[in-house]
Parts: sequence; structure tokens; C-alpha cells
Amino acid sequence: MIDLDLQIQKPATIRKMIKQGELTGHTSGMAKGYIQANVVILPSAYAYDFLKFCFRNPKTCPLLDVSEKGSKSFPTFGQQADITTEVAAYRVYKQGKLVEQRPNIDTLFTEDMVSFLIGCSFTFEHALLEAGIPIRHLEEGHNVPMYMTNIPAEDSGQFSGNITVSMRPMTMQQAIKATEITSRFKNVHGTPMHIGNPSEIGISNINQPDFGEPVVIKNNEVPVFWGCGVTPQSVALDAKPEIMITHAPGHMFITDIPDSQLIE
Amino acid sequence: MIDLDLQIQKPATIRKMIKQGELTGHTSGMAKGYIQANVVILPSAYAYDFLKFCFRNPKTCPLLDVSEKGSKSFPTFGQQADITTEVAAYRVYKQGKLVEQRPNIDTLFTEDMVSFLIGCSFTFEHALLEAGIPIRHLEEGHNVPMYMTNIPAEDSGQFSGNITVSMRPMTMQQAIKATEITSRFKNVHGTPMHIGNPSEIGISNINQPDFGEPVVIKNNEVPVFWGCGVTPQSVALDAKPEIMITHAPGHMFITDIPDSQLIE
Repeated sequence: MIDLDLQIQKPATIRKMIKQGELTGHTSGMAKGYIQANVVILPSAYAYDFLKFCFRNPKTCPLLDVSEKGSKSFPTFGQQADITTEVAAYRVYKQGKLVEQRPNIDTLFTEDMVSFLIGCSFTFEHALLEAGIPIRHLEEGHNVPMYMTNIPAEDSGQFSGNITVSMRPMTMQQAIKATEITSRFKNVHGTPMHIGNPSEIGISNINQPDFGEPVVIKNNEVPVFWGCGVTPQSVALDAKPEIMITHAPGHMFITDIPDSQLIE
Repeated sequence: MIDLDLQIQKPATIRKMIKQGELTGHTSGMAKGYIQANVVILPSAYAYDFLKFCFRNPKTCPLLDVSEKGSKSFPTFGQQADITTEVAAYRVYKQGKLVEQRPNIDTLFTEDMVSFLIGCSFTFEHALLEAGIPIRHLEEGHNVPMYMTNIPAEDSGQFSGNITVSMRPMTMQQAIKATEITSRFKNVHGTPMHIGNPSEIGISNINQPDFGEPVVIKNNEVPVFWGCGVTPQSVALDAKPEIMITHAPGHMFITDIPDSQLIE
């Protein structure tokens, strides 16, 4: 469990502790009430097509903020932030292949890079829990199951590919309530992409997710699928940029903006 | 008044008539029920910063669609369209100055250009009228009054400047209802930027709009201000691009997408 003290700290305090190497683990539960974000950092040559990809695929790639070229901070979600040191673990990909995981990227970051913050499901999971809807992977204490689908994302330049979804099982009544709730969270994936039969979206075995771990689906439950922040990473990697840097799974960027500002 | 026959035509039919020179006037009321859009066409060197400007300023610059470079059509809002011939009147600006208005741009359009479609207030005005809220400039039969404010837009590269707003007077009860209704139309400016005292947003004389024409404000009414599609045009012109092409005021691009798809 997360230290109670870390739950009540402000985002800037947590980010400073991360920068100083005092925090190195998952950020789930830290700075409770503040939005955490997926991170994608790309050379500027890819920035336009990636921004356009986000615009065209809001359910899978809900863009929260984008830096100016070479800037380490963000106009809205982290004005005092340093994206090169304040994420606990980074992954570095070259030509689409993971080459290393490291605690900072200050020696890799260049004046030519652009950083994107993309909404993550932590925010809406919190709202679902408050409405009494179970989040099975949290109950089971592991990562959410994620699946590649046969639903194509909208192309943008060199960025193309199928959508990846995350899955949470619940009763159909809860699925309807969850759809209503997440309709108010468009910047963190919004409403489900699909409810029910996995094969309709190209998933052959619900017990074998492509990423994360499987969860128990009870007899009275249906699988509910949301667009997943893995999608922009996977389509970006398919484009094989000379370099791309992301957060490591679970090691999110903690923004200065409270969850409540994402409710529409 | 608009010809009843033109109200019930499909967008592609109207666009074809425009292309053939059979329709040359304002498009208000044509292809009723379909979204009409502001048009901005820029060289690709400006596309990234302009797209980022739209992302950062959704109330004034609600982006509906963006073409691929050199393409005359749009992935979603006009798959069979030809943006170079299917707008009734275009304005051509060079280094930020209007140089001509013309009925097509097929000889000006190059493989390097990118076209943006931006939401326009026609869509939400229709919803306000259906809710019994008066639209004064329509009652008076002229263009909406528009004002430059002292509210800065969020910068993006060379694009910066203050926000321009449009104004519709109504009672405070109607203003509350109008806010509720337009909260569901985020892609056509969304909720008001301001209600009431014009001087709070830098407007010194409500009877002297910067664009359009003044309207009567009755004793029991307050002015209600929405972000205006003139903003992206004016900030783009301030950036003095070598060439920029827009629709002429009131001569909108008629998209293939029904109004109902913009309701959130």
C-alpha cells in the first residue's frame, strides 16, 4: 500500500522526491486527487503527425498537454515541471525497440524534442470506485488486462495501427452506470469502446491479455472495454522513430491539475 | 429567406451547386441539420503550430477536422469534398493582408497546403432557438456583433493574440439555460466565455462591435459572450504567413456530418 503521507503531498513535492531519487516505484495513489498522465517524448519531426493522431483518436489518445519544442515543462499541466527528471522511470526506444529503462533522461533530452501528456485511466477508476463499481484488477492487486483489437485507429501520417483496449468486468447494470460516469471524463478515454462479446472486436481469448494480467470475470458479469493509453505508444513505436522516450508502466507523470478539472 | 429546396438538399448536392457557380451567397440555412464550418488553409510549415493552437484554445478554435497535406478532402467531415471549389467565396491573404476574394482557389492550392475545419456558431444557435432563446441578430436580420477582448489566447509558436467573442443578448434566466445547452456543444465553442459587464473583458463600448453589427440589448437583458471563430483567423493573420486562405464571412464549408453528432 502507498504511504499515507505520499497520498496527501502536492504533485510538486512528489515530483521533487522522484527527481532526488527518493521515490522510484509506481505512482498509483500518490498525490491523491491530481491527474496522472502517460508520457510520450518524440523528435520534433514526428510532433505534427502525432498531435494529429491524438486529435483524430480522442478515446485512445486523449491529449492533456503538449510542450513547446525543447521545453521541459508544460503550459498547463506542469508549468514548473522538469519532464527529464520528474518521472520515476523512463523507457528509451530506438527504431521502435526498447533499449533501456532509466531513472532520468537529462542527458538524452535535446532542444529538438517535444513532450506529450496523455490521459490515463487512474482518474476515471477513482470515480467508478466512488460509485460502487468494482475494479477487479485493483481488488486482485495487479495491472489491468489489455488487449489488441481489430478496430483500426484513424491514421495520421506514419502513425497507424489497431486500437488497444483495457478491460474491467462488471454487471450490465454497472456497465451502464460506468458508461454514464465515463461520458463525463472525455480526457481520460471517455465511454467504453465495447461492452460484451470480446470476439466482436477481435479478441480471441479473454483470459490471455496481450499486456497486463488476466482478471476473474464472474458469471453475472460482462467485460467492459475502454480505449487504452498503450495505443499511442504502440502506433508510435510501429513508426520506428530514431528515438522515443516514454514513462515506464505505472510510473506516471503527476500533473499539477486536480481530477475535478477533467470532469465535463 | 433561403430557398426551401436548398434547406432540404444534402451537403454534397449544395457543394456541387457551389462548385458549378449556381450558388454564390451566404450558406446560412442550407442543408439544414448539417454542420457548417469555418475554413483556414495554410502552408504546411504553419500546420503544427496552428493545430497546437486549436488544441490549446478549444473554446475559440474548436477543431472539427484537418486534411492531410495536399489533400482537398477531409478524413471525417468531407470525404468526397473538394475544399478548393466547394466554398462559395474564399479570401486570400498574403503576409497577413487581404489581397482578393474569389469563387475558387483551384489555381492557388498547392501540394504543400493543409486545410482546417473549425466549428461555427450556426449549430448551437439552432439549438438555442429550439429552446426558445432569442437570437437577436437573426431577428434583426444581420451579422452577429463581435468584439476583441483583453483575454489572451494560449500561445502556440508564432500564433498568439487576444480572443475575439460574439455576443447575444438575453435574460439571465435564458443565459443560464443557454450555458446548459452549449455545454453539450464543445466542438462549436461550448459554454460562454463571459456573461454581463463588457468592461470586465476589455470591451469599452458594446454598441460599437469590432466586426459585424450592433444589436439591441433590452432593459431586462445581459450580453452573453461566446468564443468566436474569428479568433483563429486573426491570430493566424498576425503571424503574417506568406499565404493563408479562408472562407469569406458567411460562406461556410458545408460538411457531411449532421449537427446531432456534435452533441456531447
